[in-house]
Parts: sequence; C-alpha cells; structure tokens
Amino acid sequence: MPDRPADRMRDVTVEPFPAAAPGSVMICQGQTRVLCTASVERDCPPWIKRDPDTGQPTHGWVTAEYAMLPGSTPDRKRRKTDGRSTEIQRLIGRSLRAAVDLDRMPGVSVTCDCDVVYADGGTRTASITGAYVALVQAIRWAQNEGRLDHDPLLEPVAAISVGIVDGTPTLDLDYPLDVRAEVDMNVVMNGAGHYIEVQGTGEQDTFDRRQLDALLDLATAGINDLFSVQRGVLA
Amino acid sequence: MPDRPADRMRDVTVEPFPAAAPGSVMICQGQTRVLCTASVERDCPPWIKRDPDTGQPTHGWVTAEYAMLPGSTPDRKRRKTDGRSTEIQRLIGRSLRAAVDLDRMPGVSVTCDCDVVYADGGTRTASITGAYVALVQAIRWAQNEGRLDHDPLLEPVAAISVGIVDGTPTLDLDYPLDVRAEVDMNVVMNGAGHYIEVQGTGEQDTFDRRQLDALLDLATAGINDLFSVQRGVLA
Amino acid sequence: MPDRPADRMRDVTVEPFPAAAPGSVMICQGQTRVLCTASVERDCPPWIKRDPDTGQPTHGWVTAEYAMLPGSTPDRKRRKTDGRSTEIQRLIGRSLRAAVDLDRMPGVSVTCDCDVVYADGGTRTASITGAYVALVQAIRWAQNEGRLDHDPLLEPVAAISVGIVDGTPTLDLDYPLDVRAEVDMNVVMNGAGHYIEVQGTGEQDTFDRRQLDALLDLATAGINDLFSVQRGVLA
Amino acid sequence: MPDRPADRMRDVTVEPFPAAAPGSVMICQGQTRVLCTASVERDCPPWIKRDPDTGQPTHGWVTAEYAMLPGSTPDRKRRKTDGRSTEIQRLIGRSLRAAVDLDRMPGVSVTCDCDVVYADGGTRTASITGAYVALVQAIRWAQNEGRLDHDPLLEPVAAISVGIVDGTPTLDLDYPLDVRAEVDMNVVMNGAGHYIEVQGTGEQDTFDRRQLDALLDLATAGINDLFSVQRGVLA
Amino acid sequence: MPDRPADRMRDVTVEPFPAAAPGSVMICQGQTRVLCTASVERDCPPWIKRDPDTGQPTHGWVTAEYAMLPGSTPDRKRRKTDGRSTEIQRLIGRSLRAAVDLDRMPGVSVTCDCDVVYADGGTRTASITGAYVALVQAIRWAQNEGRLDHDPLLEPVAAISVGIVDGTPTLDLDYPLDVRAEVDMNVVMNGAGHYIEVQGTGEQDTFDRRQLDALLDLATAGINDLFSVQRGVLA
Amino acid sequence: MPDRPADRMRDVTVEPFPAAAPGSVMICQGQTRVLCTASVERDCPPWIKRDPDTGQPTHGWVTAEYAMLPGSTPDRKRRKTDGRSTEIQRLIGRSLRAAVDLDRMPGVSVTCDCDVVYADGGTRTASITGAYVALVQAIRWAQNEGRLDHDPLLEPVAAISVGIVDGTPTLDLDYPLDVRAEVDMNVVMNGAGHYIEVQGTGEQDTFDRRQLDALLDLATAGINDLFSVQRGVLA
Repeated sequence: MPDRPADRMRDVTVEPFPAAAPGSVMICQGQTRVLCTASVERDCPPWIKRDPDTGQPTHGWVTAEYAMLPGSTPDRKRRKTDGRSTEIQRLIGRSLRAAVDLDRMPGVSVTCDCDVVYADGGTRTASITGAYVALVQAIRWAQNEGRLDHDPLLEPVAAISVGIVDGTPTLDLDYPLDVRAEVDMNVVMNGAGHYIEVQGTGEQDTFDRRQLDALLDLATAGINDLFSVQRGVLA
Repeated sequence: MPDRPADRMRDVTVEPFPAAAPGSVMICQGQTRVLCTASVERDCPPWIKRDPDTGQPTHGWVTAEYAMLPGSTPDRKRRKTDGRSTEIQRLIGRSLRAAVDLDRMPGVSVTCDCDVVYADGGTRTASITGAYVALVQAIRWAQNEGRLDHDPLLEPVAAISVGIVDGTPTLDLDYPLDVRAEVDMNVVMNGAGHYIEVQGTGEQDTFDRRQLDALLDLATAGINDLFSVQRGVLA
Repeated sequence: MPDRPADRMRDVTVEPFPAAAPGSVMICQGQTRVLCTASVERDCPPWIKRDPDTGQPTHGWVTAEYAMLPGSTPDRKRRKTDGRSTEIQRLIGRSLRAAVDLDRMPGVSVTCDCDVVYADGGTRTASITGAYVALVQAIRWAQNEGRLDHDPLLEPVAAISVGIVDGTPTLDLDYPLDVRAEVDMNVVMNGAGHYIEVQGTGEQDTFDRRQLDALLDLATAGINDLFSVQRGVLA
Repeated sequence: MPDRPADRMRDVTVEPFPAAAPGSVMICQGQTRVLCTASVERDCPPWIKRDPDTGQPTHGWVTAEYAMLPGSTPDRKRRKTDGRSTEIQRLIGRSLRAAVDLDRMPGVSVTCDCDVVYADGGTRTASITGAYVALVQAIRWAQNEGRLDHDPLLEPVAAISVGIVDGTPTLDLDYPLDVRAEVDMNVVMNGAGHYIEVQGTGEQDTFDRRQLDALLDLATAGINDLFSVQRGVLA
Repeated sequence: MPDRPADRMRDVTVEPFPAAAPGSVMICQGQTRVLCTASVERDCPPWIKRDPDTGQPTHGWVTAEYAMLPGSTPDRKRRKTDGRSTEIQRLIGRSLRAAVDLDRMPGVSVTCDCDVVYADGGTRTASITGAYVALVQAIRWAQNEGRLDHDPLLEPVAAISVGIVDGTPTLDLDYPLDVRAEVDMNVVMNGAGHYIEVQGTGEQDTFDRRQLDALLDLATAGINDLFSVQRGVLA
Repeated sequence: MPDRPADRMRDVTVEPFPAAAPGSVMICQGQTRVLCTASVERDCPPWIKRDPDTGQPTHGWVTAEYAMLPGSTPDRKRRKTDGRSTEIQRLIGRSLRAAVDLDRMPGVSVTCDCDVVYADGGTRTASITGAYVALVQAIRWAQNEGRLDHDPLLEPVAAISVGIVDGTPTLDLDYPLDVRAEVDMNVVMNGAGHYIEVQGTGEQDTFDRRQLDALLDLATAGINDLFSVQRGVLA
C-alpha cells in the first residue's frame, strides 16, 4: 500500500506535449499518464441549431473521446470502444462543457481526446483535469486564428477520485487501492467550488450519508490543488 | 407542470406480465412503462472463476440490458445501443448485483432485460425498481427448479430520480421536468437505507453541498415508498 | 397436443396498449403476444420520388421491423437482427403496404414495430394482424393532425399460419405443433378474399397440390375470423 | 417484350466451370448467369448433434450463400449482404437440404455459393437449379475421397419463377417481365413432382385461387424441363 | 514443380465474358482465373473537386475492388474483406489510375471489380492485367454513350509476380511456387517500360541488390508478353 | 522546402517512454513522433502450430498494430482502421518478424503498437525503426521473466522513406515533401545490408531503373544511420 497518507494526492504534473492539434498536454498523476489533445473541428455536429435568417450556427460544442492505448496496461489492452470507455467519454464531455459558455463560441466545435499511456488508477479524472488545459489551449488558438470573437471560458474544471479503502476514506485511488476499495467516487468540480458531477458507487459495499460526506470533503481539498497545477501550466 | 407537489412521487405500480422468462413484470410510474424480464442463462460468462478441483463455477452473475422500444417516444426511436443505453445498462447491472450474494448462487447467471414501452422520464430508475422484482421471481424459479441450493437475496434495491427544477429540489422527474431541470440526480438505495449509487449531474448548472443534501433527503423518502410497492407484488 | 380441433384457431384478442406512438396494440393469440406500434416518421426514405416542380414527395411509405424480446423465449433470446428477423420484417412490410394506397399518403411514412413479448408460434402472422390495427390507428392520427388529406386505407389485411401435422392439415400452429409440422404455410389475405402472400415450405417433407389446397381452405376460414377481431378493436 | 410465348421458358444451359471447389457449374437462363460452386467444409457447424459415446456428428448439413457480383447489373451493384440476399440464401439452403438425407452424410457439411454474374431476372431460382448440380458434384467427390460411406442423394430439386404479367400467367420472368408483373411466384419442386417451397407475392396486385392454380401448372411444366437439363450435365 | 523453365510465364488468355457491366473479361493465367468487370458509376466520389463556377467535377476517378470467391480455393474461402484484400485492391486501383489521365475524364468514375474464380497464385497481378482490359472497354463504352469528350487512356498497364525459389529467380509464381519462394515481388509496368509499382518482400529470407536486379529483368520480359495479349483482345 | 540537403535525414531520437508494457519508446524523426510499445501476450494466436506430443507451441509470433492518434494531424484524425492503416500494420509486422527467429521463441507472442502522436511524413518507416527497439526491450524482459530460454534476435531492422521530388532523389520525406513527390519508396533493411521490403510507387509519375537505383542508394545510407541510433538506446 502507498506510503502517502490517505488524504494526500499523488504528485501531479501537466505539461505541453508536441502534437499537431492546437491543444496538447501530458498529465502525469503518480504513474498514471494521459495524453490529452484538443482539436477544433471543421464541421459542427449536425444537430447544432442554426439561425433561421443567416443559416449560421448559434452556438458551439465540446465533446470528448477516451481510449486506453494497448501498452497502458501490463497485459495488452485491445483497442476497442467498450461500455466503460463510452461511459467515461460521456462524463469527460459533460464536464468540459461546464467549463465553457457554448453560446459564446458559435460554430466552433472542439473534440478533446484522452489517450491513456499508462493506466494506474484515476484515468478518467486525470483525463478531465488534463483535457481542461488542452481545451483552453485550443480555445486560445481559435481566438488567435480569428475563429472566436469572444472568450467562452467560464470557471476551470478538475476532477479527482476518492474512495473507502479498508474502511478509510482515501484520496486519489491508484490501481491497487481502486481494486481494494469498497466504495469508489468520482467528483468533478469547478473553480467556484460547485459540483458538476458526483458519481459514487458501492463496488463491494454500500455506503451511508456520513461516509458520503467524508468523501466529498476529501475531494474538495484535492481538486483545489489540481486547480493550482492547471493555473501553472496555463500561465 | 405537474399538479403534484415537488416532494410527491408519481403513482407507481408493478405487476406480473406474461412472458416466457421466469421473471417478468411491467412497472408503470406515471406514464413511464418498462417491461422488465429476468432470464436464467444456460451458460455462465467465460470470466466466472471455477473451482480448480471440481471445474464448477464458484459464484454466479447478474447483468442487465436496457433498450427503448421504437414506439416509446413520440418520434420513433431507432433500435440501436448507443452510449446512453450502455451507460444505463451498466448502472442497472451494478445495482442489481448489490441485491444478491453472488457467492451463494454458483453457476447461476441471470440477465435482466428492461425494455421501455413508454418513455416519460425516469426510465433508468424505474428499470432498476422493476428489474429487482423480476430478479426475485427468477431466483425463486431457479430455487424451485433445484438450480440454487441457497437463497442469495440480500436487501431489496430500488431507485428514483431527483433534480433541481427552477431552483426547487423535486422528486421523480417526468420528461417535461427532466428537460427543465438544472441538476439531475439518480439515487439507488437498498432496504437498509444505504446508498448503492449516487449519480448527480449539473446538466445546466452546477450545484453546491446544501442542494446535494436536499436531493438526497427527497430520494430517501421516495425510495422507501418504492420498497412498499415491491413488497406488495412479491408477497 | 392441443385440445382444440385441427380446424380451430387459438383465442385471439387485440387491445390498445399505452405507448407514445400514435398506433399501439397488444395482440394475444393463445400464449403468443406481440406488441405492435406504428409511428409516423418525420422524414420519408430518400428513395421516395418527388414532384420535379414542387419538390414534394408524390407518395408515402409503410415499412416494418420485427424483433423478439429477450424474455419471449424460455431460453433468453439474444438481441440481434438475424436472417429470420430480416425475412419476417420484409414480409410484414409487404403485407401492410397492400393495405394502403401509397399514392394517397404523399410524404407520410409509417413504421410498424412488432416486438414479440411471448413467442409460442405464429409470431409473424400475429404481427401482421396486429400491426394492421396499429397502422390504422396511426393513419387516423395523421388525418386528425392534418398530415393526410385523404384516407389511404384499402381492404384490411390479416394473416395466419397453417401446416400439416402428423398428416393432418392444421390451423394456427403454436410452437409445439410448429416443431412437429411436416409442412408449414403462412397466408396473408385481404378483406376481399384475395391473397397477398402465400409462403409454403416443406420443412420436413414435401407436399402435393391436394395438400396445398386443404391448407389454403383452412387459412381462408381462419383469416375471416381475424377480420372480425380487427373490426372490433377499430370500431 | 419477349418473342417467346408466355408458357415457354428461356434457353437454359448448365455447364461445368473450372474452380477449386469440388462442385462448380455456370447456369445460363436467357441472359441470367450464375456461378454455383459447392465446397465440402472441414468443420461442421457447432449446432450439429454428436453421438454422446463416440463424439462423432450424427448427421451432416447443407447451406448456401447468394451474392450479386458488382458487374451483374447495369448500374454497379455494391457488395453487401442485404435483407433480400439473406432471404434468398435461406431459401436456397432449405431447397437443397430437401435433396439430401442429412442422416446419411454424418459430419459432412457442404456450402453452396451462388454468385450472380449477370442478373436478368430469376436469379434465385436459377441458383437453386444450378446449385443442385454443384451439390451432386461435391457429394460424388466426397464419396470418392472416402468421406462419405453412403449416397445421401434423394430426388433432384429445381426451381422456376412464374408470374402474372398484364393479366397473363407467364413462365420464367426475365427482368423486364418481373418489373411489370402484378404477381410473382417462386416454385421449388422435386423429381417426384412434390412442392418444396411455394412463395407467391402480390407485388402490385392481389391474386385469387384460380390464378394461383394457373401459376402452379405453368411452374410444374417448366421445372420438368429443368430436370432434363440437370440430368444432361450430371450424366 | 512446374515443367516450364524459370523464365517462362504460364499460358495467359484474356477473353470477353458476358456480364451487365460495360467492361467484362475473364483472365486465365495457368489455372488462375479472375473475372474482371468495369462499371461506370452514376456518382463521383464526394472528394472529387468541382469547378467553383459551373459546379461540375474537374476530373474523374478509377478505383478497384478485389475479392476471392468462396469456391476459388480448395478449402472454402469465407467472404470477407480482410487486410490482404484491402491491400490488394489499393494496389490495383493505383495501378489502373496510372493508365489514364484523370483530368481528361471529368465526372466519370470507373470501378473495376476483380473476383477470383480460381486462385492458383498471382491473382493480384492477373487482376491488374485483366482489369486494364475491362477498364478500356468501359471507357470506350462511355465514349460511345457521349459521357466522355476525350480519350483519357495513356500507356497500357500490366503486372506480373516474380520471386526467388530455391535460390533461382523465377517468373510468374503459381501457388506451389509462391509457398516455397524465399522472396516474392510484384511488378507493375506501363507500355513505355517504366515502373508504376515495385513491391518486393522477403517472405522467408532477405535479398540483396543483385537478386533485386535479376527479378526486375525477368518481370520486364514477362510484362511485355502480357501487353501482346492485351492488345489482342482489345483489337 | 527544407533547408537540409536532399541526401540528409531529419534528426532522429529514440527514447524510452514510461508505459505499462515491457517495451516502450518514443521515436522522433523531425516533427514526426510515434509511441511504440511492445506487449508480450498471454495467449498465442490460434493458428500457431503445437507439438503433437506435448501440446506446446513450437514457435512464437510477432505482430503489429498502427494507428494515428486524433491529435496527430492539424485536422482531427478520426479513430478508425482504414485500408491504409491495415496495409501499414501488415508491413510493420512482416518487417519485425524478419528481426527474430520465431522458432527460438516458442509460445511467446509479441504485439508491437505504433501510435502516431505527430504525423509529419514517414510515420510507417519511423514505426518500424522504433518498434524494433520496443521489441528488443520486450524480448529482454521475457528472458528475464524466464519465459524465453533462448535469444531469438537476429539482425536489427530499420526503415526509411525516399522519393523523387521535383526530379531529385530525396531522403526521408516529411509531409510537405511527400505531397510533392512524384515517386515514393519505403525501404526496410536489416543490419547485414539486405532488403526485407522494397515498396516503390509512382504516385504522380512512373520511374525507370536508373531512378530506382538512386533511391535504393539513398535509403541504404539513411538506414545505416538509424542502426546507430537504435544501438545507442539499446546499449
């Protein structure tokens, strides 16, 4: 089990990583590593509403894809979009959309791709934290390119996993902790301290209200540290 | 908007519905109707562990599938398993597995199918509440057939949706409410009053801890009523 | 084997069944139960011809989908569109199109969905008999909505299975009879007593002209009874 | 329209065509040309029953696949297995199985492939007539190879299409006739003059019993001529 | 092993073969037989550039599909597009495009389909040699139909396989030679003696520059003979 | 156009890159970056031969997968295995198998995954050069783990692209050069200076023997430099 205390997060870095997409970072959280890129798409999805007079889209869109690279697990991970990946990429997309005012980015559609290079627990929350930075990079690029008249960014968004391990509420589960956890919770928050998503699951046991409260307290503290890391790389 | 107060659930009935599967009920929650059947499979999934000596499976399995029938929505719903369905059926499966001790049903695999006949909000939570009843029917059938030596049932499981609509915490969102809700939360509990799953999403707004608490209180009251309905049909 | 004589049909009921689609009935034929809904689609299929001057569709379309729900068979039926389903839904679609004058429903496209809840033989013919009723409901709805200027309905359409079982021509095969039948025939007729489709198959034996004639006589009598049931529910 | 009388079939030839499969013929019926090959498979389908003592299959199997080659139609035909192909290959398979005693070919599985080179109407019935010859070639080969102890062949099988064109019952519809036909019927018979399959469809009109009888008479005469052609090539 | 010397090609014929497509030939090279048809498509691919003023396509396209028919191998070949087929049809397409000036066939798109009837080695190169003839037939047809104002044909194109078998550079590998070959090379040339494609692979051994030169010399001689065969059928 | 002379390669580095797979490097060739990982699979492919007495596999296997990550191109690359990817991963697999003696690694199956992070030309050849290093890492790991009794490694393998640009034979095409190239050739060699694969394609023009020779000379020089880089990282 880890040497760190139950309320201490793993070391986290977010760094620019050269790719062709306008947004691209590698986030490392302990051994977990995720490449997050953000691409500005040429076309909006077909269901974006358009102004009946001008025919122009009236808002924009942000979506995400999540995949584990084959070498990210000790036993090779086959390339396929399974139910788990689908669920995770929907969560990432919802979380990132809470970081922008879609009405202020008409006709601009950003796809954030989160490709896990090393999977050691917490890949979905690390993806959100990292993809937010790539999204900001891509939006700044779009502003420089003249494709955005306004700044659509709202509060920053970050996420962390927490859980109950051997009865103890624990911050930032790595893979060995995640396997042992009775309860697992992913929390997504914004810079104003509000929740965007709370997903608690009794994997091996149920949980009561008191435990839920303890997990939310841990998560809040952890996410505040992640905002600092994000600000550092975006400065 | 509905005539009922924000803390009052829609009318709920769960009734046996003739099908070939050993478990089969129709749950009606307001206009929402879901056909829930439970089939005992001939084969266990390949990843169920087996006793090295006897070659027999050492535990059982419970899983779920969720689909919307084409006539369940005013505009015809195309038959396909999209990301939303995948996510929902994973949630139903996890919830139902919390209702049984898998170690006490070795070699018995139950699939619960939730087919939405009329979709008016809350289909995933109604699926859980109804599928639990079908699961119990199937397990009783398997016991009668001599395929189960023990009773694997633990506490009952039920689920409800809650949300914040126009700033008001509201129980049991129908479709018009769901569309207007700023925050949407699905809560799965067991008969001991413990959480199995808490999934809160800020669809159109974020939410703070106080709002989260109000939603959990509403959900608890609603789920207790659902346990009564379940007991009635299973008596 | 059944108590009923070889020339007597199982009990048949067709009743409205609440769903969101404008046409929706449950047909029960003995134990066989099929949910038949009819939806009016927003878009016509791309191959519907259009008036070169107005760009408007010059006729309409009726199509069908057929599926067995997982709980419809004692061993769970996996959800997939196999060759048998494809063949059946093509038959249902052709049969229903014979019930309407497509030229009198320009731009209106109806999809009839037949979902088998309990499969005990004769599901394809019950689907036709039930879907005709749902189709009429949907067309009446479209007329009320002002989407149809004319009444496109022609003669009613119904269908029955017949077969040779232990050498005896037999009406309305349930599953145990179907398994034992040497010859199996599905007959679709309209209210004028004309054939729309005759599909006879020597499953386990061939058949001669005399046997073919006996089967057609049985089918004609049975289908006339089905027209009475349809008239009852539509009155 | 064709110069030939309504009760006269197009010219038909069936000739061996070099391929690697043990059975291989080209059938030409007017302009329609279908390459029919028959392969003896290494493995039986998984659902063939096996003797509980010896573990050996207790019977054999015959199946078929049908495809239109891209160059078989004036506008290029895309390669895909659509509903029509599925339906046709199921019909071909059922028809060919009526030509053999599966119990006399334990463990031998034959797949007949019908690839349409030129599509000018009647491809499904020409496929049956030609594939029967390829099937006989493959079975003789398997006997020579010592893979079959008995001769499983029963009566020969052939098929023809008939229809009502401009009110006239007509034998052997080519494509222009097929397009104009009010009623279309495919008849599969065996050498004893018994029906294996009768599929009549009112494509543009319904039909009565008298018309059905006229079509069956025409088909019987035509199929008898096809048996002569088959005997010629197999002699 | 073959009686022919290592520098002698198998007998080759290319003959018109009746199909509905405007170009259609059967090429036989030893036992290898490939049906090559060429269809002029109604629609250009979406990525063909269009003149901004007239909206008309500014050039044309030639593409290819390759498939092995199930009866083409002693053990039945399943119908599917695997990696090998994909690679081969891309090679055929590239080779045929070198035979035409796409700018001189605006809006005309030709698909060449190569369906292997008998596979005895060299099917991809025989496909190129045969498909070139079908392509010329289709282009002549399009000129006659008035769909082409100019003749887009450049130099003819043909292809051959060569390899090193038991240390000896060998022309035109049939299947038994191909299996034994240490090195395998496919060469596509045009009538001016220039290379369009050279693909050498050390299947079981590597090869040096001297061996490469010997293989290219053999291929050049063989391809010149193929041009004569093509001229014969096209005269 | 590049400042470097036509016979000078871009800067190349190959460095270990942390992942969970036993082999993992990032190769950078100019701006092109490919993550190459090598995983030792638990199961051999089903077609690996087994010793009839012991039931143990008699040899091993090496295969490859190739994909472009969505952020690797300025316009987002959709995740899918198209024809080009299939062709490339077959080439990588063949090339790597030439680097090992499969008979000396019985029962060991290695999959090399090449995921392009930044695509600026030459991704398939960079994948081969990088994947060879990851393969060696994985084989050393398998030896340390006791899963390999022998060292199966033969000569090293590396690859480079060459082409004719504006009439000039040019080494190591980046994307802008590749687009302009009249002829494009990929060369795979081993440490003994022998060819494993030579694939020359006249993309926009044909080429003669003299040009082919010039391209092979350039490639040989470039690949020798790559062997030095590989030795450096593996030392």
